[in-house]
Amino acid sequence: MAGSLDFFFSLGSTYTYLTAMRIEAVAEAADVTVRWRPFSVRTIMREQNNIPFTHKPIKTRYMWRDIERRAARHGIAFAGPPHYPNDGDPIANQLGIIAADEGWCPAYTKAVYRNWFLDDKDPGDRETLRSILLSLGKDPVALLERAGSPDLQERYAAQTDVARQAGIFGSPTFMVGEEMFWGDDRLEEALDWCLRHATAAAPGA
Amino acid sequence: MAGSLDFFFSLGSTYTYLTAMRIEAVAEAADVTVRWRPFSVRTIMREQNNIPFTHKPIKTRYMWRDIERRAARHGIAFAGPPHYPNDGDPIANQLGIIAADEGWCPAYTKAVYRNWFLDDKDPGDRETLRSILLSLGKDPVALLERAGSPDLQERYAAQTDVARQAGIFGSPTFMVGEEMFWGDDRLEEALDWCLRHATAAAPGA
Repeated sequence: MAGSLDFFFSLGSTYTYLTAMRIEAVAEAADVTVRWRPFSVRTIMREQNNIPFTHKPIKTRYMWRDIERRAARHGIAFAGPPHYPNDGDPIANQLGIIAADEGWCPAYTKAVYRNWFLDDKDPGDRETLRSILLSLGKDPVALLERAGSPDLQERYAAQTDVARQAGIFGSPTFMVGEEMFWGDDRLEEALDWCLRHATAAAPGA
Repeated sequence: MAGSLDFFFSLGSTYTYLTAMRIEAVAEAADVTVRWRPFSVRTIMREQNNIPFTHKPIKTRYMWRDIERRAARHGIAFAGPPHYPNDGDPIANQLGIIAADEGWCPAYTKAVYRNWFLDDKDPGDRETLRSILLSLGKDPVALLERAGSPDLQERYAAQTDVARQAGIFGSPTFMVGEEMFWGDDRLEEALDWCLRHATAAAPGA
């Protein structure tokens, strides 16, 4: 392995769709291991008074066009802008932490994003999550209960704090040791960095 | 020629440094003509309540690190963050409009950016502009007077209005017909777009 990279993300972030759909292939081609680390970008954005620009129609229109073009560039499906902003329920991300522990976070995250971007089903919607879990051969009842438990709330807050301490302010963010790369459009640069530098310890790992 | 691209920019924008230093070479390699079009990004950002994040220290720190890394990637000099934000005097951009009319805008813009990024001299400072004009073999007295005239103020406002009507909200922005690409990191995509599409009329051209 050429190194490893920490992929900090929030389900509910728009540009993270592109990363979720392509990071496995490009990281594998670069021989880089990816750690999937859901955190609450909303919490950090609120703290930094860094508000998503949904009330800025011109920037929002550009964002969707940019995502559409970049999806086409990477051969990723795009069916027009889904509803946004979405439900702020942290349950999808807390499920993501369990999924990362157990090794099915990539499949889970892609399923959540496909449901949102291609079928306009909200990442925070429990019925959607239930059917995603079923499709992955998981037990929705047990997992949704565990994902909502105080233990997972704490794990989610702790991972968010790791992100905060690392200086992360957006999703997706790639950490290579202490070097931070923000945005799907910096994924290749982050992988290059992995290849050129010995892998330092991951933040909070 | 494979087509042409309109490079809308404001002297005073940070990421535009990277574009100013490299657009001639990459556009020439792609056989694309570039029209240099200074406009007032400040005016549009104010109108859209889109405020530069200088009061957001974490994002600002990341921006400079990102610029530093991308400068290294492109072989562009970087001497650490210069002072920012800078003087809002529109004179540098109004001079840029004259320079574009007369064909010396690339040399002028690069000189302004080198002075700012490498010597920490403000783009709005008239003494700096005077010495830049001298170094380009121009008449500083006549040009500074013309650049500050009502005629140039109007030209600058008109070019800003073209940008506004095109949906531009940041600098640098590349327009290929009506297709908009925002950010130095979209320059290659904009050039690809030129190559793949017949060139439509430029906005306001």
